[in-house]
Amino acid sequence: LFGLTGGQVGVGDDAAVVSLGGSDLVATADLLIDGVHFDTREHAPERIGRKSLAVNLSDLAAMAARPAGALVSLALPRGGAAGCSVDELARRLLEGMQPLAEDFGCPIVGGDTNVHSGPLVVSVTAFGTPTSRGVVRRSGARPGDWLMVTGAGLGGSLAGKHLDFTPRVPEALRLHELADLHAMMDLSDGVSLDLHRMCEASGVGAVVFYAHVIVAEAAMSAATASGRSPIDHALGDGEDFELIFAVSSEAGRDLLTRPRIECGLNWIGEFVAGSRVTLRRSDGSEHPLAARGYEHR
Amino acid sequence: LFGLTGGQVGVGDDAAVVSLGGSDLVATADLLIDGVHFDTREHAPERIGRKSLAVNLSDLAAMAARPAGALVSLALPRGGAAGCSVDELARRLLEGMQPLAEDFGCPIVGGDTNVHSGPLVVSVTAFGTPTSRGVVRRSGARPGDWLMVTGAGLGGSLAGKHLDFTPRVPEALRLHELADLHAMMDLSDGVSLDLHRMCEASGVGAVVFYAHVIVAEAAMSAATASGRSPIDHALGDGEDFELIFAVSSEAGRDLLTRPRIECGLNWIGEFVAGSRVTLRRSDGSEHPLAARGYEHR
Repeated sequence: LFGLTGGQVGVGDDAAVVSLGGSDLVATADLLIDGVHFDTREHAPERIGRKSLAVNLSDLAAMAARPAGALVSLALPRGGAAGCSVDELARRLLEGMQPLAEDFGCPIVGGDTNVHSGPLVVSVTAFGTPTSRGVVRRSGARPGDWLMVTGAGLGGSLAGKHLDFTPRVPEALRLHELADLHAMMDLSDGVSLDLHRMCEASGVGAVVFYAHVIVAEAAMSAATASGRSPIDHALGDGEDFELIFAVSSEAGRDLLTRPRIECGLNWIGEFVAGSRVTLRRSDGSEHPLAARGYEHR
Repeated sequence: LFGLTGGQVGVGDDAAVVSLGGSDLVATADLLIDGVHFDTREHAPERIGRKSLAVNLSDLAAMAARPAGALVSLALPRGGAAGCSVDELARRLLEGMQPLAEDFGCPIVGGDTNVHSGPLVVSVTAFGTPTSRGVVRRSGARPGDWLMVTGAGLGGSLAGKHLDFTPRVPEALRLHELADLHAMMDLSDGVSLDLHRMCEASGVGAVVFYAHVIVAEAAMSAATASGRSPIDHALGDGEDFELIFAVSSEAGRDLLTRPRIECGLNWIGEFVAGSRVTLRRSDGSEHPLAARGYEHR
Protein backbone atom coordinates (compact mmCIF):
# COMPACT_ATOMS: atom_id res chain seq x y z
CA LEU A 1 0.00 0.00 0.00
CA PHE A 2 2.75 2.42 0.94
CA GLY A 3 5.34 3.22 -1.69
CA LEU A 4 8.26 3.68 0.67
CA THR A 5 10.27 6.13 -1.35
CA GLY A 6 9.56 9.18 0.70
CA GLY A 7 6.79 10.50 -1.47
CA GLN A 8 3.07 10.68 -1.68
CA VAL A 9 1.38 7.37 -1.08
CA GLY A 10 -1.81 5.60 -1.91
CA VAL A 11 -3.04 8.05 -4.42
CA GLY A 12 -0.43 8.01 -7.16
CA ASP A 13 -0.75 11.74 -7.59
CA ASP A 14 0.33 14.94 -5.86
CA ALA A 15 -2.82 14.98 -3.78
CA ALA A 16 -5.90 12.88 -3.14
CA VAL A 17 -9.32 13.82 -4.47
CA VAL A 18 -12.23 12.78 -2.27
CA SER A 19 -15.91 13.22 -2.97
CA LEU A 20 -17.76 14.82 -0.08
CA GLY A 21 -21.22 14.21 -1.43
CA GLY A 22 -21.65 16.95 -4.00
CA SER A 23 -18.34 18.76 -3.76
CA ASP A 24 -14.80 17.42 -4.13
CA LEU A 25 -11.99 17.84 -1.65
CA VAL A 26 -8.32 17.86 -2.65
CA ALA A 27 -6.05 16.84 0.23
CA THR A 28 -2.32 16.36 0.62
CA ALA A 29 0.11 15.62 3.45
CA ASP A 30 3.85 16.13 3.86
CA LEU A 31 5.91 15.28 6.90
CA LEU A 32 9.28 17.02 7.29
CA ILE A 33 12.02 15.94 9.66
CA ASP A 34 15.08 17.67 11.11
CA GLY A 35 18.19 16.34 9.40
CA VAL A 36 16.25 15.12 6.37
CA HIS A 37 14.27 18.04 4.94
CA PHE A 38 15.79 20.87 6.97
CA ASP A 39 18.49 21.38 9.57
CA THR A 40 17.73 23.19 12.81
CA ARG A 41 21.46 23.82 13.27
CA GLU A 42 21.41 26.04 10.18
CA HIS A 43 17.85 27.10 9.45
CA ALA A 44 15.68 29.44 11.48
CA PRO A 45 12.36 27.97 12.67
CA GLU A 46 10.43 30.51 10.57
CA ARG A 47 12.02 29.19 7.36
CA ILE A 48 11.38 25.61 8.42
CA GLY A 49 7.75 26.36 9.17
CA ARG A 50 7.34 28.23 5.93
CA LYS A 51 8.79 25.36 3.91
CA SER A 52 6.56 22.82 5.65
CA LEU A 53 3.44 24.64 4.52
CA ALA A 54 4.89 25.58 1.11
CA VAL A 55 5.52 21.98 0.02
CA ASN A 56 1.86 21.21 0.69
CA LEU A 57 0.70 24.28 -1.22
CA SER A 58 2.91 23.12 -4.09
CA ASP A 59 1.04 19.80 -4.10
CA LEU A 60 -2.30 21.62 -4.28
CA ALA A 61 -0.91 23.76 -7.11
CA ALA A 62 0.10 20.59 -8.94
CA MET A 63 -3.57 19.56 -8.95
CA ALA A 64 -4.69 23.10 -9.93
CA ALA A 65 -6.68 23.22 -6.70
CA ARG A 66 -7.54 26.32 -4.70
CA PRO A 67 -6.15 26.11 -1.11
CA ALA A 68 -8.74 26.18 1.69
CA GLY A 69 -6.91 25.35 4.91
CA ALA A 70 -4.21 23.35 6.64
CA LEU A 71 -3.62 21.40 9.84
CA VAL A 72 -0.20 21.36 11.49
CA SER A 73 1.03 18.61 13.81
CA LEU A 74 4.35 18.94 15.59
CA ALA A 75 6.63 16.56 17.44
CA LEU A 76 8.89 18.94 19.33
CA PRO A 77 12.22 17.86 20.82
CA ARG A 78 12.03 18.06 24.61
CA GLY A 79 15.10 20.25 24.87
CA GLY A 80 14.01 22.60 22.08
CA ALA A 81 16.04 23.15 18.91
CA ALA A 82 17.54 25.92 16.77
CA GLY A 83 18.51 27.68 19.99
CA CYS A 84 14.86 27.91 21.04
CA SER A 85 12.87 26.49 23.93
CA VAL A 86 10.04 24.12 23.03
CA ASP A 87 7.40 26.84 23.23
CA GLU A 88 9.47 29.36 21.28
CA LEU A 89 10.22 26.77 18.63
CA ALA A 90 6.52 26.02 18.12
CA ARG A 91 5.64 29.69 18.06
CA ARG A 92 8.33 30.57 15.52
CA LEU A 93 7.46 27.62 13.26
CA LEU A 94 3.88 28.87 13.15
CA GLU A 95 4.98 32.46 12.62
CA GLY A 96 6.92 31.29 9.59
CA MET A 97 3.78 29.70 8.16
CA GLN A 98 1.38 32.59 8.77
CA PRO A 99 2.41 34.99 5.96
CA LEU A 100 2.25 32.16 3.42
CA ALA A 101 -1.08 30.98 4.84
CA GLU A 102 -2.47 34.47 4.43
CA ASP A 103 -1.00 35.11 0.97
CA PHE A 104 -2.43 31.85 -0.37
CA GLY A 105 -5.79 31.83 1.42
CA CYS A 106 -4.86 28.74 3.36
CA PRO A 107 -5.56 29.39 7.07
CA ILE A 108 -4.08 27.02 9.64
CA VAL A 109 -7.26 25.76 11.24
CA GLY A 110 -5.94 23.24 13.73
CA GLY A 111 -3.39 20.62 14.55
CA ASP A 112 -1.71 18.80 17.38
CA THR A 113 1.46 19.44 19.37
CA ASN A 114 3.53 16.97 21.34
CA VAL A 115 6.92 16.92 23.00
CA HIS A 116 9.19 13.90 22.63
CA SER A 117 12.76 12.67 22.86
CA GLY A 118 13.35 12.64 19.07
CA PRO A 119 14.06 15.27 16.43
CA LEU A 120 11.69 18.00 15.30
CA VAL A 121 8.95 16.61 13.05
CA VAL A 122 6.57 18.95 11.24
CA SER A 123 3.55 17.23 9.71
CA VAL A 124 1.25 19.39 7.59
CA THR A 125 -1.96 18.45 5.82
CA ALA A 126 -3.42 20.95 3.39
CA PHE A 127 -6.73 20.78 1.61
CA GLY A 128 -8.42 22.69 -1.11
CA THR A 129 -11.12 22.64 -3.72
CA PRO A 130 -11.05 22.10 -7.46
CA THR A 131 -12.04 24.96 -9.72
CA SER A 132 -15.02 24.54 -12.04
CA ARG A 133 -12.61 22.94 -14.54
CA GLY A 134 -11.83 20.10 -12.09
CA VAL A 135 -8.40 18.93 -10.97
CA VAL A 136 -5.40 18.21 -13.18
CA ARG A 137 -3.86 14.80 -12.65
CA ARG A 138 -0.46 13.54 -13.70
CA SER A 139 -1.88 10.80 -15.87
CA GLY A 140 -3.22 12.66 -18.91
CA ALA A 141 -0.12 13.43 -21.01
CA ARG A 142 -0.46 12.33 -24.66
CA PRO A 143 2.08 11.65 -27.40
CA GLY A 144 2.76 14.92 -29.21
CA ASP A 145 2.06 17.06 -26.11
CA TRP A 146 4.59 19.66 -25.15
CA LEU A 147 6.41 19.30 -21.83
CA MET A 148 6.58 22.69 -20.14
CA VAL A 149 7.93 23.94 -16.84
CA THR A 150 7.34 27.05 -14.75
CA GLY A 151 10.07 29.36 -13.47
CA ALA A 152 13.38 30.77 -14.55
CA GLY A 153 15.65 27.76 -14.21
CA LEU A 154 16.14 24.35 -12.70
CA GLY A 155 18.50 22.73 -10.22
CA GLY A 156 20.65 23.68 -7.24
CA SER A 157 17.63 24.20 -5.00
CA LEU A 158 19.38 22.82 -1.93
CA ALA A 159 21.53 25.99 -1.83
CA GLY A 160 18.47 27.80 -0.48
CA LYS A 161 15.48 27.73 -2.82
CA HIS A 162 14.16 24.52 -1.23
CA LEU A 163 13.41 26.58 1.90
CA ASP A 164 12.32 29.84 0.35
CA PHE A 165 10.53 28.89 -2.87
CA THR A 166 7.15 30.34 -3.71
CA PRO A 167 4.57 27.65 -4.40
CA ARG A 168 3.11 28.05 -7.88
CA VAL A 169 -0.52 28.26 -6.76
CA PRO A 170 -1.73 31.33 -8.70
CA GLU A 171 0.32 30.23 -11.72
CA ALA A 172 -1.39 26.83 -11.69
CA LEU A 173 -4.85 28.34 -11.44
CA ARG A 174 -4.06 30.80 -14.24
CA LEU A 175 -2.62 28.08 -16.49
CA HIS A 176 -5.74 26.02 -15.83
CA GLU A 177 -7.86 28.95 -17.09
CA LEU A 178 -5.68 29.65 -20.11
CA ALA A 179 -5.09 26.15 -21.43
CA ASP A 180 -6.40 22.62 -21.41
CA LEU A 181 -3.78 21.07 -19.11
CA HIS A 182 -3.50 17.38 -19.90
CA ALA A 183 -1.27 16.56 -16.93
CA MET A 184 0.60 18.42 -14.22
CA MET A 185 2.77 17.74 -11.17
CA ASP A 186 5.26 19.58 -9.02
CA LEU A 187 8.99 18.95 -9.11
CA SER A 188 9.88 17.55 -5.71
CA ASP A 189 12.46 14.93 -6.65
CA GLY A 190 13.96 16.39 -9.85
CA VAL A 191 12.82 16.48 -13.48
CA SER A 192 14.34 13.08 -14.28
CA LEU A 193 12.47 11.17 -11.58
CA ASP A 194 9.27 13.19 -11.62
CA LEU A 195 9.02 13.08 -15.42
CA HIS A 196 9.38 9.31 -15.26
CA ARG A 197 6.46 9.29 -12.83
CA MET A 198 4.30 11.43 -15.10
CA CYS A 199 5.18 9.25 -18.09
CA GLU A 200 4.39 6.06 -16.19
CA ALA A 201 1.06 7.46 -14.95
CA SER A 202 0.19 8.63 -18.48
CA GLY A 203 1.45 5.56 -20.34
CA VAL A 204 3.74 7.60 -22.57
CA GLY A 205 7.42 8.35 -23.04
CA ALA A 206 9.13 11.73 -23.28
CA VAL A 207 12.06 13.51 -24.88
CA VAL A 208 13.77 16.36 -23.03
CA PHE A 209 15.51 18.89 -25.27
CA TYR A 210 18.95 19.52 -23.82
CA ALA A 211 19.23 22.98 -25.37
CA HIS A 212 15.84 24.10 -23.97
CA VAL A 213 16.60 23.35 -20.34
CA ILE A 214 17.36 26.54 -18.44
CA VAL A 215 19.97 25.78 -15.81
CA ALA A 216 19.53 27.83 -12.63
CA GLU A 217 22.50 29.85 -11.39
CA ALA A 218 22.42 27.74 -8.24
CA ALA A 219 22.82 24.61 -10.37
CA MET A 220 25.89 26.14 -12.03
CA SER A 221 27.43 26.74 -8.61
CA ALA A 222 26.47 23.25 -7.48
CA ALA A 223 28.15 21.81 -10.58
CA THR A 224 31.35 23.69 -9.84
CA ALA A 225 31.36 22.23 -6.35
CA SER A 226 30.32 18.68 -7.24
CA GLY A 227 32.24 18.19 -10.48
CA ARG A 228 29.04 16.98 -12.14
CA SER A 229 27.61 18.79 -15.15
CA PRO A 230 25.17 21.71 -14.81
CA ILE A 231 22.50 19.85 -16.86
CA ASP A 232 22.89 16.91 -14.49
CA HIS A 233 22.04 19.20 -11.59
CA ALA A 234 19.21 20.90 -13.47
CA LEU A 235 17.51 17.60 -14.28
CA GLY A 236 18.54 15.57 -11.24
CA ASP A 237 18.37 17.92 -8.26
CA GLY A 238 15.30 17.68 -6.03
CA GLU A 239 13.05 20.27 -4.43
CA ASP A 240 12.72 22.74 -7.29
CA PHE A 241 8.99 22.93 -6.59
CA GLU A 242 8.29 24.20 -10.07
CA LEU A 243 5.39 22.71 -12.04
CA ILE A 244 5.82 20.49 -15.08
CA PHE A 245 2.81 20.08 -17.31
CA ALA A 246 1.60 18.63 -20.58
CA VAL A 247 -0.40 20.61 -23.13
CA SER A 248 -1.11 20.25 -26.82
CA SER A 249 1.52 21.85 -29.03
CA GLU A 250 -1.04 24.50 -30.08
CA ALA A 251 -1.77 25.42 -26.47
CA GLY A 252 1.94 25.38 -25.65
CA ARG A 253 2.76 27.69 -28.54
CA ASP A 254 0.01 30.07 -27.41
CA LEU A 255 1.38 30.13 -23.85
CA LEU A 256 4.88 30.89 -25.13
CA THR A 257 3.99 33.53 -27.70
CA ARG A 258 1.58 35.47 -25.47
CA PRO A 259 3.25 35.25 -22.07
CA ARG A 260 0.80 35.76 -19.21
CA ILE A 261 2.47 33.76 -16.43
CA GLU A 262 4.66 36.07 -14.40
CA CYS A 263 7.15 33.48 -13.14
CA GLY A 264 7.96 32.47 -16.69
CA LEU A 265 7.45 29.25 -18.65
CA ASN A 266 9.83 27.09 -20.59
CA TRP A 267 9.20 24.47 -23.24
CA ILE A 268 11.68 21.72 -22.42
CA GLY A 269 10.50 18.66 -24.31
CA GLU A 270 7.67 16.62 -25.71
CA PHE A 271 5.78 13.48 -24.92
CA VAL A 272 6.05 10.53 -27.28
CA ALA A 273 4.48 7.12 -27.73
CA GLY A 274 6.10 4.28 -25.84
CA SER A 275 7.68 4.42 -22.43
CA ARG A 276 11.25 5.66 -22.98
CA VAL A 277 12.39 8.90 -21.38
CA THR A 278 15.35 10.38 -23.20
CA LEU A 279 17.50 13.50 -23.43
CA ARG A 280 18.03 14.86 -26.96
CA ARG A 281 21.29 16.71 -27.45
CA SER A 282 21.81 19.52 -29.92
CA ASP A 283 23.38 17.12 -32.42
CA GLY A 284 20.13 15.15 -32.49
CA SER A 285 21.46 12.16 -30.55
CA GLU A 286 19.16 10.71 -27.89
CA HIS A 287 20.34 9.31 -24.56
CA PRO A 288 18.30 7.55 -21.87
CA LEU A 289 17.40 9.87 -18.98
CA ALA A 290 17.81 7.84 -15.81
CA ALA A 291 15.06 8.01 -13.21
CA ARG A 292 17.39 9.10 -10.48
CA GLY A 293 16.61 12.05 -8.32
CA TYR A 294 16.64 13.09 -4.77
CA GLU A 295 14.67 10.61 -2.70
CA HIS A 296 14.43 11.14 1.04
CA ARG A 297 15.41 7.82 2.49
CA LEU B 1 -1.43 30.44 18.80
CA PHE B 2 -0.44 26.95 19.87
CA GLY B 3 -1.75 25.72 23.22
CA LEU B 4 1.25 23.58 24.04
CA THR B 5 -0.41 21.03 26.25
CA GLY B 6 -0.40 18.17 23.81
CA GLY B 7 -3.92 18.68 22.55
CA GLN B 8 -5.81 20.15 19.69
CA VAL B 9 -4.68 23.60 18.77
CA GLY B 10 -6.00 26.70 17.16
CA VAL B 11 -9.58 25.67 17.02
CA GLY B 12 -10.59 25.24 20.67
CA ASP B 13 -12.67 22.22 19.77
CA ASP B 14 -12.19 18.55 18.90
CA ALA B 15 -11.94 19.38 15.21
CA ALA B 16 -11.90 22.38 12.91
CA VAL B 17 -14.85 23.36 10.75
CA VAL B 18 -13.94 24.98 7.44
CA SER B 19 -16.29 26.35 4.83
CA LEU B 20 -15.52 25.05 1.36
CA GLY B 21 -17.83 27.39 -0.47
CA GLY B 22 -21.21 25.75 -0.02
CA SER B 23 -20.34 22.72 2.05
CA ASP B 24 -18.52 22.46 5.37
CA LEU B 25 -15.51 20.31 6.09
CA VAL B 26 -14.68 18.96 9.55
CA ALA B 27 -10.98 18.20 9.96
CA THR B 28 -8.82 16.96 12.80
CA ALA B 29 -5.20 15.90 13.28
CA ASP B 30 -3.44 13.77 15.89
CA LEU B 31 0.23 12.93 15.98
CA LEU B 32 1.27 9.88 18.02
CA ILE B 33 4.82 9.10 19.10
CA ASP B 34 6.57 5.96 20.27
CA GLY B 35 7.15 6.18 24.01
CA VAL B 36 4.44 8.78 24.50
CA HIS B 37 1.19 7.39 23.05
CA PHE B 38 2.26 3.80 22.45
CA ASP B 39 5.28 1.61 22.98
CA THR B 40 6.72 -0.41 20.10
CA ARG B 41 8.46 -2.66 22.67
CA GLU B 42 5.05 -3.86 23.86
CA HIS B 43 2.46 -3.10 21.20
CA ALA B 44 2.09 -4.70 17.79
CA PRO B 45 2.21 -2.27 14.82
CA GLU B 46 -1.38 -3.17 13.90
CA ARG B 47 -2.65 -1.96 17.29
CA ILE B 48 -0.58 1.20 17.03
CA GLY B 49 -1.90 1.91 13.55
CA ARG B 50 -5.45 1.22 14.64
CA LYS B 51 -5.18 3.58 17.59
CA SER B 52 -3.69 6.35 15.44
CA LEU B 53 -6.73 6.35 13.20
CA ALA B 54 -9.19 5.70 16.04
CA VAL B 55 -8.25 8.83 18.00
CA ASN B 56 -9.00 10.91 14.92
CA LEU B 57 -12.33 9.17 14.36
CA SER B 58 -13.13 9.90 18.00
CA ASP B 59 -12.54 13.60 17.32
CA LEU B 60 -14.92 13.48 14.35
CA ALA B 61 -17.47 11.67 16.55
CA ALA B 62 -17.11 14.43 19.12
CA MET B 63 -18.31 16.91 16.48
CA ALA B 64 -21.08 14.52 15.32
CA ALA B 65 -19.45 14.51 11.88
CA ARG B 66 -19.56 11.72 9.34
CA PRO B 67 -16.03 10.46 8.46
CA ALA B 68 -14.99 10.85 4.81
CA GLY B 69 -11.28 10.06 4.64
CA ALA B 70 -7.88 10.24 6.26
CA LEU B 71 -4.25 10.95 5.37
CA VAL B 72 -1.43 9.15 7.14
CA SER B 73 2.11 10.49 7.44
CA LEU B 74 4.84 8.36 8.98
CA ALA B 75 8.34 9.04 10.29
CA LEU B 76 9.81 5.55 10.43
CA PRO B 77 12.91 4.72 12.47
CA ARG B 78 15.74 3.76 10.14
CA GLY B 79 16.36 0.46 11.90
CA GLY B 80 12.68 -0.46 12.06
CA ALA B 81 10.83 -1.08 15.34
CA ALA B 82 8.61 -3.63 17.07
CA GLY B 83 10.82 -6.34 15.62
CA CYS B 84 9.96 -5.23 12.07
CA SER B 85 11.97 -3.82 9.21
CA VAL B 86 11.03 -0.33 8.03
CA ASP B 87 8.86 -1.62 5.19
CA GLU B 88 7.15 -4.25 7.33
CA LEU B 89 6.49 -1.68 10.05
CA ALA B 90 4.79 0.66 7.58
CA ARG B 91 2.77 -2.16 6.07
CA ARG B 92 1.58 -3.47 9.43
CA LEU B 93 0.68 -0.01 10.71
CA LEU B 94 -1.52 0.46 7.65
CA GLU B 95 -2.99 -3.01 7.97
CA GLY B 96 -4.03 -2.13 11.50
CA MET B 97 -5.86 0.93 10.20
CA GLN B 98 -7.66 -0.71 7.29
CA PRO B 99 -10.46 -2.57 9.13
CA LEU B 100 -11.33 0.54 11.11
CA ALA B 101 -11.17 2.67 7.96
CA GLU B 102 -13.60 0.30 6.26
CA ASP B 103 -15.96 -0.05 9.23
CA PHE B 104 -16.25 3.69 9.63
CA GLY B 105 -16.33 4.73 5.97
CA CYS B 106 -13.05 6.59 6.33
CA PRO B 107 -10.70 5.44 3.53
CA ILE B 108 -7.01 6.28 3.80
CA VAL B 109 -6.62 8.37 0.68
CA GLY B 110 -3.00 9.43 0.91
CA GLY B 111 -0.11 10.44 3.07
CA ASP B 112 3.64 10.64 3.22
CA THR B 113 6.35 8.27 4.44
CA ASN B 114 9.86 9.09 5.53
CA VAL B 115 12.69 7.31 7.27
CA HIS B 116 14.69 9.06 9.98
CA SER B 117 16.96 8.56 12.97
CA GLY B 118 14.25 9.22 15.59
CA PRO B 119 11.35 7.25 17.04
CA LEU B 120 8.25 6.12 15.15
CA VAL B 121 5.86 9.03 14.59
CA VAL B 122 2.38 8.43 13.19
CA SER B 123 0.57 11.57 12.08
CA VAL B 124 -3.03 11.16 10.96
CA THR B 125 -5.45 13.76 9.64
CA ALA B 126 -9.09 12.76 9.29
CA PHE B 127 -11.86 14.73 7.71
CA GLY B 128 -15.58 14.42 7.48
CA THR B 129 -18.81 16.23 6.83
CA PRO B 130 -21.50 17.55 9.13
CA THR B 131 -24.95 15.99 8.96
CA SER B 132 -27.90 18.18 8.01
CA ARG B 133 -28.14 19.13 11.70
CA GLY B 134 -24.65 20.71 11.61
CA VAL B 135 -21.76 20.01 13.95
CA VAL B 136 -21.88 19.86 17.74
CA ARG B 137 -19.33 22.06 19.46
CA ARG B 138 -18.14 21.94 23.04
CA SER B 139 -19.31 25.45 23.78
CA GLY B 140 -23.10 25.09 24.03
CA ALA B 141 -23.72 23.58 27.49
CA ARG B 142 -26.30 25.55 29.52
CA PRO B 143 -27.06 25.68 33.25
CA GLY B 144 -29.58 22.95 34.04
CA ASP B 145 -28.34 20.67 31.22
CA TRP B 146 -27.57 17.10 32.06
CA LEU B 147 -24.00 15.85 31.72
CA MET B 148 -24.04 12.43 30.09
CA VAL B 149 -21.34 10.01 28.99
CA THR B 150 -21.28 7.05 26.60
CA GLY B 151 -20.06 3.57 27.48
CA ALA B 152 -20.06 1.18 30.39
CA GLY B 153 -17.50 2.75 32.70
CA LEU B 154 -14.64 5.19 33.05
CA GLY B 155 -10.96 5.00 33.89
CA GLY B 156 -8.07 2.55 33.69
CA SER B 157 -7.85 2.89 29.91
CA LEU B 158 -4.05 2.62 29.88
CA ALA B 159 -4.37 -1.08 30.76
CA GLY B 160 -5.43 -1.67 27.16
CA LYS B 161 -8.56 0.21 26.14
CA HIS B 162 -6.52 3.21 24.95
CA LEU B 163 -5.26 1.00 22.11
CA ASP B 164 -8.35 -1.02 21.36
CA PHE B 165 -11.28 1.32 21.98
CA THR B 166 -14.05 1.69 19.43
CA PRO B 167 -14.58 5.31 18.43
CA ARG B 168 -18.15 6.39 19.14
CA VAL B 169 -18.94 7.50 15.61
CA PRO B 170 -22.31 5.78 15.01
CA GLU B 171 -23.33 6.57 18.58
CA ALA B 172 -22.60 10.26 18.03
CA LEU B 173 -24.58 10.36 14.80
CA ARG B 174 -27.51 8.53 16.43
CA LEU B 175 -27.49 10.81 19.47
CA HIS B 176 -27.45 13.81 17.14
CA GLU B 177 -30.61 12.44 15.48
CA LEU B 178 -32.36 11.61 18.75
CA ALA B 179 -31.66 14.71 20.79
CA ASP B 180 -30.71 18.35 20.59
CA LEU B 181 -27.08 18.05 21.70
CA HIS B 182 -26.01 21.35 23.25
CA ALA B 183 -22.34 20.41 23.53
CA MET B 184 -20.16 17.34 23.01
CA MET B 185 -16.50 16.31 23.17
CA ASP B 186 -14.50 13.13 23.50
CA LEU B 187 -12.64 12.11 26.64
CA SER B 188 -8.98 12.19 25.75
CA ASP B 189 -7.48 13.58 28.93
CA GLY B 190 -9.95 12.42 31.59
CA VAL B 191 -13.37 13.65 32.71
CA SER B 192 -11.88 16.16 35.17
CA LEU B 193 -9.77 18.00 32.63
CA ASP B 194 -12.08 17.60 29.64
CA LEU B 195 -15.13 18.70 31.62
CA HIS B 196 -13.25 21.81 32.70
CA ARG B 197 -12.59 22.49 29.02
CA MET B 198 -16.25 22.07 28.10
CA CYS B 199 -17.30 24.30 31.00
CA GLU B 200 -14.80 26.97 30.06
CA ALA B 201 -15.87 26.90 26.40
CA SER B 202 -19.54 27.07 27.43
CA GLY B 203 -19.17 29.65 30.19
CA VAL B 204 -20.80 27.41 32.79
CA GLY B 205 -19.87 25.28 35.80
CA ALA B 206 -20.74 21.64 36.47
CA VAL B 207 -21.47 19.22 39.27
CA VAL B 208 -20.46 15.57 38.90
CA PHE B 209 -22.54 13.13 40.94
CA TYR B 210 -20.14 10.78 42.71
CA ALA B 211 -22.72 7.99 42.97
CA HIS B 212 -23.58 8.14 39.26
CA VAL B 213 -20.06 7.62 37.96
CA ILE B 214 -19.57 4.07 36.73
CA VAL B 215 -16.03 3.01 37.49
CA ALA B 216 -14.59 0.67 34.85
CA GLU B 217 -13.16 -2.63 36.04
CA ALA B 218 -9.80 -1.50 34.68
CA ALA B 219 -9.99 1.57 36.94
CA MET B 220 -10.60 -0.70 39.95
CA SER B 221 -7.48 -2.68 39.09
CA ALA B 222 -5.52 0.52 38.49
CA ALA B 223 -6.60 1.79 41.93
CA THR B 224 -5.40 -1.40 43.62
CA ALA B 225 -2.04 -0.95 41.97
CA SER B 226 -1.69 2.81 42.49
CA GLY B 227 -3.17 3.17 45.97
CA ARG B 228 -5.38 5.99 44.67
CA SER B 229 -9.19 5.72 44.81
CA PRO B 230 -11.24 4.13 42.00
CA ILE B 231 -13.23 7.35 41.48
CA ASP B 232 -9.93 9.20 41.16
CA HIS B 233 -8.98 6.90 38.29
CA ALA B 234 -12.44 7.07 36.71
CA LEU B 235 -12.42 10.87 36.63
CA GLY B 236 -8.70 11.48 36.20
CA ASP B 237 -7.42 8.81 33.81
CA GLY B 238 -6.91 9.82 30.20
CA GLU B 239 -7.72 8.15 26.90
CA ASP B 240 -11.20 6.78 27.66
CA PHE B 241 -12.35 8.07 24.26
CA GLU B 242 -15.96 8.06 25.38
CA LEU B 243 -18.15 11.05 24.56
CA ILE B 244 -19.42 13.51 27.13
CA PHE B 245 -22.33 15.67 26.12
CA ALA B 246 -24.85 18.22 27.37
CA VAL B 247 -28.58 17.94 26.76
CA SER B 248 -31.67 19.41 28.38
CA SER B 249 -32.93 17.38 31.34
CA GLU B 250 -36.00 16.41 29.29
CA ALA B 251 -33.86 15.09 26.44
CA GLY B 252 -31.56 13.35 28.91
CA ARG B 253 -34.46 11.65 30.65
CA ASP B 254 -35.82 10.50 27.29
CA LEU B 255 -32.42 9.02 26.33
CA LEU B 256 -32.22 7.15 29.65
CA THR B 257 -35.75 5.82 29.76
CA ARG B 258 -35.88 4.65 26.14
CA PRO B 259 -32.36 3.32 25.58
CA ARG B 260 -31.38 3.28 21.90
CA ILE B 261 -27.61 3.66 22.13
CA GLU B 262 -26.02 0.23 22.16
CA CYS B 263 -22.84 1.13 24.01
CA GLY B 264 -24.85 2.51 26.91
CA LEU B 265 -25.24 5.98 28.38
CA ASN B 266 -24.83 7.31 31.88
CA TRP B 267 -26.09 10.47 33.49
CA ILE B 268 -23.18 11.64 35.63
CA GLY B 269 -23.90 15.24 36.50
CA GLU B 270 -25.37 18.57 35.54
CA PHE B 271 -24.23 21.93 34.34
CA VAL B 272 -24.73 24.95 36.59
CA ALA B 273 -24.36 28.70 36.40
CA GLY B 274 -20.92 30.05 37.31
CA SER B 275 -17.58 28.45 36.57
CA ARG B 276 -16.98 26.00 39.42
CA VAL B 277 -16.60 22.31 38.64
CA THR B 278 -17.37 20.16 41.66
CA LEU B 279 -17.93 16.56 42.76
CA ARG B 280 -21.07 15.99 44.86
CA ARG B 281 -20.79 13.08 47.27
CA SER B 282 -23.73 10.96 48.41
CA ASP B 283 -24.00 13.00 51.62
CA GLY B 284 -24.63 16.12 49.55
CA SER B 285 -21.25 17.70 50.22
CA GLU B 286 -19.54 19.33 47.23
CA HIS B 287 -15.80 19.30 46.62
CA PRO B 288 -13.81 21.07 43.90
CA LEU B 289 -12.91 18.75 41.03
CA ALA B 290 -9.35 19.62 40.04
CA ALA B 291 -8.59 20.06 36.35
CA ARG B 292 -5.87 17.49 36.38
CA GLY B 293 -5.76 14.74 33.84
CA TYR B 294 -3.38 12.99 31.58
CA GLU B 295 -1.56 15.50 29.45
CA HIS B 296 1.04 14.27 26.99
CA ARG B 297 4.03 16.45 27.71
